[in-house]
Amino acid sequence: MSPSARPKNDTFLRALLREPVDYTPVWLMRQAGRYLPEYNETRRRAGSFLNLCKNPQLACEVTLQPLSRFELDAAILFSDILTVPDAMGLGLYFADGEGPKFERPLREEWVIRGLTAPDPNVHLRYVMDAVAEIRRALDGSVPLIGFSGSPWTLACYMVEGGSSADYRTVKTMLYDRPDLMHHILQVTATAVVDYLNAQIESGAQAVMIFDSWGGALSHAAYREFSLAYMQRIVADLKRSHDGQRVPCIVFTKGGGQWLEAIADIGCDAVGLDWTTDLGEARRRVGNRVALQGNLDPMALFASPDKVAAEARRVLDSFESDSSASEKSCGHVFNLGHGISQFTPPENVKVLVDTVHSHSRRSSAGS
Amino acid sequence: MSPSARPKNDTFLRALLREPVDYTPVWLMRQAGRYLPEYNETRRRAGSFLNLCKNPQLACEVTLQPLSRFELDAAILFSDILTVPDAMGLGLYFADGEGPKFERPLREEWVIRGLTAPDPNVHLRYVMDAVAEIRRALDGSVPLIGFSGSPWTLACYMVEGGSSADYRTVKTMLYDRPDLMHHILQVTATAVVDYLNAQIESGAQAVMIFDSWGGALSHAAYREFSLAYMQRIVADLKRSHDGQRVPCIVFTKGGGQWLEAIADIGCDAVGLDWTTDLGEARRRVGNRVALQGNLDPMALFASPDKVAAEARRVLDSFESDSSASEKSCGHVFNLGHGISQFTPPENVKVLVDTVHSHSRRSSAGS
Repeated sequence: MSPSARPKNDTFLRALLREPVDYTPVWLMRQAGRYLPEYNETRRRAGSFLNLCKNPQLACEVTLQPLSRFELDAAILFSDILTVPDAMGLGLYFADGEGPKFERPLREEWVIRGLTAPDPNVHLRYVMDAVAEIRRALDGSVPLIGFSGSPWTLACYMVEGGSSADYRTVKTMLYDRPDLMHHILQVTATAVVDYLNAQIESGAQAVMIFDSWGGALSHAAYREFSLAYMQRIVADLKRSHDGQRVPCIVFTKGGGQWLEAIADIGCDAVGLDWTTDLGEARRRVGNRVALQGNLDPMALFASPDKVAAEARRVLDSFESDSSASEKSCGHVFNLGHGISQFTPPENVKVLVDTVHSHSRRSSAGS
Repeated sequence: MSPSARPKNDTFLRALLREPVDYTPVWLMRQAGRYLPEYNETRRRAGSFLNLCKNPQLACEVTLQPLSRFELDAAILFSDILTVPDAMGLGLYFADGEGPKFERPLREEWVIRGLTAPDPNVHLRYVMDAVAEIRRALDGSVPLIGFSGSPWTLACYMVEGGSSADYRTVKTMLYDRPDLMHHILQVTATAVVDYLNAQIESGAQAVMIFDSWGGALSHAAYREFSLAYMQRIVADLKRSHDGQRVPCIVFTKGGGQWLEAIADIGCDAVGLDWTTDLGEARRRVGNRVALQGNLDPMALFASPDKVAAEARRVLDSFESDSSASEKSCGHVFNLGHGISQFTPPENVKVLVDTVHSHSRRSSAGS
């Protein structure tokens, strides 16, 4: 059997393509991560976070960990969002408790003008090996999601040299030297297209673009400096592989007010954070795209009955668009942002089970 | 002459009430602050930030500093957003470089049940004295804005005990013990009403409610835990004093998608951060409210010609609603958030002068 055939549980892929499903599929951003003791154990064995990302066997191991605990409907490649700029030569490292940093942030014009897109099959071979390894290990059970940061989000890190509270350095460049900013974004967009297409060829069955910092831009700058580049990426992606359609999800955190514009770039699904009502979102985009989201990750800190109640509220909010002809069609349940490292794992089980049971009941009642 | 009569320059008040104006008035959130060397000098003399807030003469001095540098159309009371919880007994202090903290954050149910609204004319006398002092010093030149944090924003600090990246403690209470959360918000809303009304009686000619953290809430939780309490405050505010209408501005940072709901709570104006297009916002709310905003504070780090270009873009975006019958009516120019401490003061002058000259030209052309 071809490893690219549809998985046994294809509910996630069907929901992204707005095909009928028996229940609402669910996965969680950062589902393989620090809230799981077994993840922390593997990370200790790897020696560091970067070693873990760069070792395909260990990356595969942590990718599968949440799937053996919870009835998740998709796996997502375990990797770092900054592998692409690292492969561009910026020197990614992690200072203890400080998040990611670059040894050589982009500041000088001559360095920026010399930036080139890396060959993902050479410089990011470890990611492609991890994708292939995970596909083998999943053995056709659930689909595997590949991912990349958006050009704008990657550029924020590349210019700032790490996380930033106000994006002062990168925004100063944006307002003062839009030509330089566009050059960085063009090269990075090419790199992201190549990176995602290589993941698809290696076995990723859906891809997601994380625009974590797009919401920090003004209404006008978002369109020019983030959305335009994601549109170009979506246009250049391989949208089918081995006879199967490969859906593409675009997620701009804080992008709820720009939903219509995002839905128009040609993606199959739009991710939403918890500030947007799913029913209203559905009315705004109609049948153009599927929607993914959008429980507040902090709701997972409540008691189990409250977690279940919030999960039902999110599911019901999607159904509240009474103008929609088909119920439960085109919704992938997720958090509105990555799961917190402090989340009690037992509440994740309550969440996943509630999404399945409540959405099966809703479907049956329709 | 009564100190409450309309100021000589009443453009700001007229714009808030959507009366015709000759140009677009401008002031800047946190305009009296660390980007001004003279502010830092006064703060050094005061010994600490809290001493500065609690000394009416020095608070007056820093309030007036930006007005002698720039042609601003309003002054805003210099004070801290956390004076109310401090007066409730939580023990506000500032750890060096760490932002505000409370000695006694709200955690225990018995403490929360014992919370009471302070008498602003007793426990916040220094604020009322500062308001009166500033009104005397302004001598009828431009109007004085009073302000308070929103109940939700104050509650975030009160429960977290300081700033927070994820609001985990306060959101756990919100999801797990909504009864306790509502109790805190009810008492705090009463305190804010009393506080703002006392500021109005002391001479504030407009008031603004800063909901800095409302944007961290889910669509549903925002309505229940933030907006509902701001609506109650707006309903209970003294809306006129000494024969003059006292306009009220509500600003939820990150609240752009909820603009219609905010405009419906009875305020005169809605503040917007830079993620919302002013022309679209105007189409969405029609003539219900004036709009205040919304330049990205980081645009002030570009070169002066780029600062001027961005200021014109924001002004023109407001005018882009061609369905509006009156041009330049109901817009107060501001940043989309507080000015950064690293802002070059000379760029602020470029900004203020550009807003005035460009909007005079637009008005003349209409």
